[in-house]
Amino acid sequence: MPRSTPTSPTSPTPGRRRSGRPGHDADSVLHVAARVFNERGYDGTSMEDLARALGVTKSAIYHHVSSKTELLSRSLDLAMDALFEVTREEGSTTGPAVDRLEHVLRGSVRVLVEQLPHVTLLLRVRGNTEVEKRALARRREFDHLVAALVREGIADGDIRGDVDPAVASRLLFGMVNSIIEWYKPDRGLGGEAVADTLALIAFEGIRTGPKPR
Amino acid sequence: MPRSTPTSPTSPTPGRRRSGRPGHDADSVLHVAARVFNERGYDGTSMEDLARALGVTKSAIYHHVSSKTELLSRSLDLAMDALFEVTREEGSTTGPAVDRLEHVLRGSVRVLVEQLPHVTLLLRVRGNTEVEKRALARRREFDHLVAALVREGIADGDIRGDVDPAVASRLLFGMVNSIIEWYKPDRGLGGEAVADTLALIAFEGIRTGPKPR
Repeated sequence: MPRSTPTSPTSPTPGRRRSGRPGHDADSVLHVAARVFNERGYDGTSMEDLARALGVTKSAIYHHVSSKTELLSRSLDLAMDALFEVTREEGSTTGPAVDRLEHVLRGSVRVLVEQLPHVTLLLRVRGNTEVEKRALARRREFDHLVAALVREGIADGDIRGDVDPAVASRLLFGMVNSIIEWYKPDRGLGGEAVADTLALIAFEGIRTGPKPR
Repeated sequence: MPRSTPTSPTSPTPGRRRSGRPGHDADSVLHVAARVFNERGYDGTSMEDLARALGVTKSAIYHHVSSKTELLSRSLDLAMDALFEVTREEGSTTGPAVDRLEHVLRGSVRVLVEQLPHVTLLLRVRGNTEVEKRALARRREFDHLVAALVREGIADGDIRGDVDPAVASRLLFGMVNSIIEWYKPDRGLGGEAVADTLALIAFEGIRTGPKPR
């Protein structure tokens, strides 16, 4: 699944939609679908609603996907694929665990900011259908990966031994995931600035002065 | 509004419901209503559903409240009242701003753990009705209070000057609010332990060794 186009975060560009590049089209459809699902709820959204939001006919959507379920499934996969991609980057696989953890946290912030509608959909999934259950299982797999990094960092002596690895990973990703609640792409705050503040809080804490030993 | 009974977190105790203590009854009704709203969605819940979940008749519910809207309104108020109560405690009003911030964060964790269904409802509100809009306005007021403490802590030199106060408060409360997603009251993890790990991350960071100056 190609990345969504950063220049059209909330609506497809008609000129592009007519350009005959099917990859881009499928992408726009998916992006708008995720946005509408987030606004109206998945159950409350019909293919009719999606067609209206896209300014196309229902059959134009069916050119790309076979069903509403497929749109949900692809959107959730796009979000999870991007998160797992971060865990395979060099910064996540080489070096001390504490640095790999920082790489995963920063990369996750980047994914959330870049794929906001898809990750928002992912984080609101409650496991009501098979597609949602599969997404939740992948989220748990990701959570375990992060908790393992925290444990490894503690074993290395680079992460404080008085943090509970499971609780700490939940809280660290609580910070990351909160981005879907408050981040507004159009307010000039870049993903990198959010990642910097998050990494500062997570690894150094906001208090000045020497850490209590 | 009296606090919900910690010993009956998810269902009313029939013996108690019949004990003729109307305060307790209203409390149980509210607690169960919040839980059912969270499970089925507010719009998807009828007074009939609530009566079934409580094991009482609809008229027994109407003994306590006049409408479903009133239940929502009271539940959201209970959550926000408890959070604002924290900001009026001595630890939140005296001493250096950085310590007051820690008090507010720890107190908020306690409120989330103790009032989980009500705060869960509060954090899922999207502002679709007047009642929801009012709750969102109170949340914003609370957020501003927290951001002001961060700014004051920076001015005092106790909080690092390289954190953006608005982003930092969002992220800190991202940790707090994530509790509604993962905290399970029955798994032996106390609110105090969560607050300790959260305060450690927020103020000292998880990395060992001296902080970079």
